[in-house]
Amino acid sequence: MDLQDFVKLFILVNLLTVCKAYNYTTYFYQQKVDHFGFTMEDTFIQRYLVNDESWEGNNGPIFLYAGNEGDITLFIDNTGFMFDIAPEFKALIIFAEHRYYGVSLPYGSKSFSEPKYSGYLTSEQALADYAELIAYLKDNIPGAELSPVIVFGGSYGGMLAAWFRMKYPHIVQGAIAASAPILQFTDITPYEDFAKVVTADFAKESAECVEVIRKSWSAINEVTADDAGKTWLSDTWNLCDPLVSEGNVTDLKYYLMNVWTNLAMVDYPYPADFLAPLPAYPIKVVCSHLTDSRKDPKPLLEELFDGLTVYFNFTGKTECLNYKQQADERLNDQGWDFQACTEMVMPFTYDGVNDFFEPSTWDLEAYSEQCKAKWGVTPRPRMAQLIYGGMEIEASSNIVFSNGLLDPWSSGGVMWNVSETVVSVIIPEGAHHLDLRSSHPDDPQSVIDARLEEKHHIKKWIDSYMELVSEDMI
Amino acid sequence: MDLQDFVKLFILVNLLTVCKAYNYTTYFYQQKVDHFGFTMEDTFIQRYLVNDESWEGNNGPIFLYAGNEGDITLFIDNTGFMFDIAPEFKALIIFAEHRYYGVSLPYGSKSFSEPKYSGYLTSEQALADYAELIAYLKDNIPGAELSPVIVFGGSYGGMLAAWFRMKYPHIVQGAIAASAPILQFTDITPYEDFAKVVTADFAKESAECVEVIRKSWSAINEVTADDAGKTWLSDTWNLCDPLVSEGNVTDLKYYLMNVWTNLAMVDYPYPADFLAPLPAYPIKVVCSHLTDSRKDPKPLLEELFDGLTVYFNFTGKTECLNYKQQADERLNDQGWDFQACTEMVMPFTYDGVNDFFEPSTWDLEAYSEQCKAKWGVTPRPRMAQLIYGGMEIEASSNIVFSNGLLDPWSSGGVMWNVSETVVSVIIPEGAHHLDLRSSHPDDPQSVIDARLEEKHHIKKWIDSYMELVSEDMI
Repeated sequence: MDLQDFVKLFILVNLLTVCKAYNYTTYFYQQKVDHFGFTMEDTFIQRYLVNDESWEGNNGPIFLYAGNEGDITLFIDNTGFMFDIAPEFKALIIFAEHRYYGVSLPYGSKSFSEPKYSGYLTSEQALADYAELIAYLKDNIPGAELSPVIVFGGSYGGMLAAWFRMKYPHIVQGAIAASAPILQFTDITPYEDFAKVVTADFAKESAECVEVIRKSWSAINEVTADDAGKTWLSDTWNLCDPLVSEGNVTDLKYYLMNVWTNLAMVDYPYPADFLAPLPAYPIKVVCSHLTDSRKDPKPLLEELFDGLTVYFNFTGKTECLNYKQQADERLNDQGWDFQACTEMVMPFTYDGVNDFFEPSTWDLEAYSEQCKAKWGVTPRPRMAQLIYGGMEIEASSNIVFSNGLLDPWSSGGVMWNVSETVVSVIIPEGAHHLDLRSSHPDDPQSVIDARLEEKHHIKKWIDSYMELVSEDMI
Repeated sequence: MDLQDFVKLFILVNLLTVCKAYNYTTYFYQQKVDHFGFTMEDTFIQRYLVNDESWEGNNGPIFLYAGNEGDITLFIDNTGFMFDIAPEFKALIIFAEHRYYGVSLPYGSKSFSEPKYSGYLTSEQALADYAELIAYLKDNIPGAELSPVIVFGGSYGGMLAAWFRMKYPHIVQGAIAASAPILQFTDITPYEDFAKVVTADFAKESAECVEVIRKSWSAINEVTADDAGKTWLSDTWNLCDPLVSEGNVTDLKYYLMNVWTNLAMVDYPYPADFLAPLPAYPIKVVCSHLTDSRKDPKPLLEELFDGLTVYFNFTGKTECLNYKQQADERLNDQGWDFQACTEMVMPFTYDGVNDFFEPSTWDLEAYSEQCKAKWGVTPRPRMAQLIYGGMEIEASSNIVFSNGLLDPWSSGGVMWNVSETVVSVIIPEGAHHLDLRSSHPDDPQSVIDARLEEKHHIKKWIDSYMELVSEDMI
């Protein structure tokens, strides 16, 4: 990391901390770039955030958030559950940033420039970072030497939480893995299930809503077939970058796929700002505009735009529709794109019949070629399963896998009780890791119950660890 | 690997297979050099040996030997237990060679030349090799798709066996970890315990035997203080390389430390050839020569040489004492020296009072400097504990830790029942992984019992796995 990167880092840290929702102090820890090898001895600076408002020492618990693919401040703002229950447990809260995200870039601006630098971005290395950090904190924070550690995470962070308990049970006593699609890999979960859940979320509002979206793909293809149509759609949808090529049209459709998927993920019961500022139950609001699928292509696309506006301009302050930008900028697409090209290879297919997307198949060969061209790496679609076990996790313990049925990622989640201590919590009215969010007056009963169950498990894990520790001390 | 390396490899394979004690076929599997990163895509050829004489398919069990620090043929010749019990289980036997040993050299003759090549020699990478190999074999051997896998290993191989079950319980259903010193790391086992066990093995024969060895160090120092004395000792002990420097004297004393330690490790109840060709209970034979510690230095060293001869020349065919050569050449000192300088940092101390060695302390700083100078690496004394858990292995399952009380490595072994399924088997009359050796008419009852207990656990692990598999198939 050169000086310039360090300056950027501090500016970024300061910018981000002024708008935080929870109090925290920012710290940094020097990590090994490669925990598993001895080819070199490079180190980098990992950021972590600490809230000790409930902490009283005395070997109280540590609540660790296993940072996922983004700036860690994004997650601390959207994981209120940990703050809600910390006082009852007198817990120390730690949010650890995932390597290669936020400001925790092992090689500064060169981090993604070539495999020599990017190649250390793996979940295994990230878990080893968390293990080292926890060991360091327990050694150095007075009164934390024998603290039990509970790890929390949502989405990829939930996968990390579960895997952290599986691989480092001597470091973490239990895991709350929310909306963690650890089964969304090759030859495990059917590839079409994800799209079916997205579609079902819209079908719940109305069949017409689904039909409008299903027809929109061919409408876009038809309208944008010539330049005049491209211009018409660019104007009508107020696109920041006008459509001038087939590539632009593909990008736009890719953007739309993400919009419908994101809406399914964040279909929360109250206004929230996770992937975008949105009203309560945003799919209901979107679908209130998508009521007539029998229209001709252009009127259909005008209708679709009314729905789309709910997503990209709920605040009314967005000047134009930027279809080249994805979700929250703090979710670093670069890092996740690399991970999806290496270890996190998640196959999806769409058929347009059982779902409302434009049909597309899963072509590993083409995908690998793209990855090779873009990042210089070859995907390893079976790596995560080989290392973490896929469905065969019976030997693990102390994990809650929570899934909301509105959340498309539930398709790759653990939806059954694996054993007495590896349990599934289903939240019928929940979207993507709703349970990790702070409690809210509009919460459905199912998420209130889920959080109670999670608390119950956390308490049990802590108690049995403290029993073990006190036995050892006798 | 260039062509010349390949030729060498085949010559070596052919040389080794002519003197094998058990039947096996040699195979090779292409492994990734780096399982945990994407900085490059190098591969290497791992050797593995297969015996299918008892195998009948039908998802019978696979018995895997987790190769340790040496040519895999050394281990197949000294792990008869697996062959003894394979018929009863109809098991397929696999001996997998550890990367960087035998012919499984990732970068041929360059493998140890610099950290860029040597740095992938870690236990984590070796375990990932075994995981990949097993996944490949189960996918490709007819009738092995649902085979349970039991892993065996002795010494460092026993550590790997235990860790393999801990980290990959979805791939291996149980582990027989014989004489596995997983606690022989920084701040876990007291550093002086190892030397105490070595000494106790000799004390069991006679107090004089211990006293002769204890006094030998100062006798050597005194006699070799001048050139005439160095020449005298070189002649009297028939050294291949005469002592001409203090460095030679240090090497000789280091050789002697190893001799006494090795004798404690291989104090088997019948003649064997593991680290050297030796008679039954070799310590008894050695000590029969070491009977008078009151002699002057020179006569004392003559007496010591009579004992030493049992170790280095039991066959009567050794022309001279080669103090620069260690144990069996098939145990690759280069590889283990690198591992001891990186991840397998095992501290030992000697005080000459509670043990019979020349006193020496544990100086991590000096040790690190040597490692840096020799291999270009910095030791990570806490790496194994961080990754594998040290004493805190309560969350694991299905492991037998067996230890012989004659074996100095028992000092770093798991000598208590950790849980119902992670159990300790103690063999009072056993030396270093005696239980893994083939049954023998002179076996003490305790090793016969230990093998029965191990078989009982193996059967239980296989049965409960088959139950799980058949439940899944319903």
